[in-house]
Amino acid sequence: MTEKAFQDFYPDNLSHCYGCGRLNENGLHVRSFWDGDETVCSFSPRPYHTAIPGFVYGGLLASLIDCHSTGSASAAAYRAENRPMGSEPPIRFVTASLKVDYLRPTPIEGPLLLRSRFDEIGRRKVIVRTDLFVGDLLCVQGQVVTVRLRDEGSPATDLGSHDRTA
Amino acid sequence: MTEKAFQDFYPDNLSHCYGCGRLNENGLHVRSFWDGDETVCSFSPRPYHTAIPGFVYGGLLASLIDCHSTGSASAAAYRAENRPMGSEPPIRFVTASLKVDYLRPTPIEGPLLLRSRFDEIGRRKVIVRTDLFVGDLLCVQGQVVTVRLRDEGSPATDLGSHDRTA
Repeated sequence: MTEKAFQDFYPDNLSHCYGCGRLNENGLHVRSFWDGDETVCSFSPRPYHTAIPGFVYGGLLASLIDCHSTGSASAAAYRAENRPMGSEPPIRFVTASLKVDYLRPTPIEGPLLLRSRFDEIGRRKVIVRTDLFVGDLLCVQGQVVTVRLRDEGSPATDLGSHDRTA
Repeated sequence: MTEKAFQDFYPDNLSHCYGCGRLNENGLHVRSFWDGDETVCSFSPRPYHTAIPGFVYGGLLASLIDCHSTGSASAAAYRAENRPMGSEPPIRFVTASLKVDYLRPTPIEGPLLLRSRFDEIGRRKVIVRTDLFVGDLLCVQGQVVTVRLRDEGSPATDLGSHDRTA
């Protein structure tokens, strides 16, 4: 795929995430894109990502929703500020709260498609709502509350002091 | 560790879970135990389980909470029915809904300790509330609604038809 994903624009020091960091050799490499006003992500589980044989592990599904949501939040914030993705200073969001509803078992054969829309796009907080499909089958729904990192240089401090109700 | 974990009692066909299946060679091998009326799980993240360097990936934390909760639900149901764990027919729970609040970044050095109590122990539904610590530092809280598999022989059918409000 030649199109750049949201995650391809993350600065190097924020690209070590197990879920979506391009520099994490062991990671999942979640990649997210715009589709109109929604965002999408496709992912093919590995054979060992099982819950019960034949179905995808719920923790993996939560992980995909998590990383796709923080990436989507970043993209939405760049768009809201009329800035090209990757322009300085970087805009990054982290997860304050994650909610996942497992509607039915998710078949492991097909690629998973995540499709997200925004319940809220605020300066400090973005709320992302995701439907996860296999083919036409809606299997999982997620809602992620993300908060913006204030300063790229000190994510830990910022994470530690974030106001989850901001 | 010689003490058997909850997950050691799962029947083979339910032991392929990426999070907690003892037969999944690539998995996390979550192991849970009683501590009085609470349940506990200790887990040491791998170096690549990073979010931002130095801190644990949120999707891993959600995964640990998920598997520890379904295991705890099973153990609670056996105890409620005065049955030894592993006695036939097996009692297994799956996740209907998962909620995780990330209170602060979770340092990756120390072992993670999950400690859980039960908000509800019903015949078909068990709700598990978890605090996740590194040392004395409370980093993450989770709430998982689990539902019981009706029939060990047909988990997929049962999963597909479960009533999440049951």
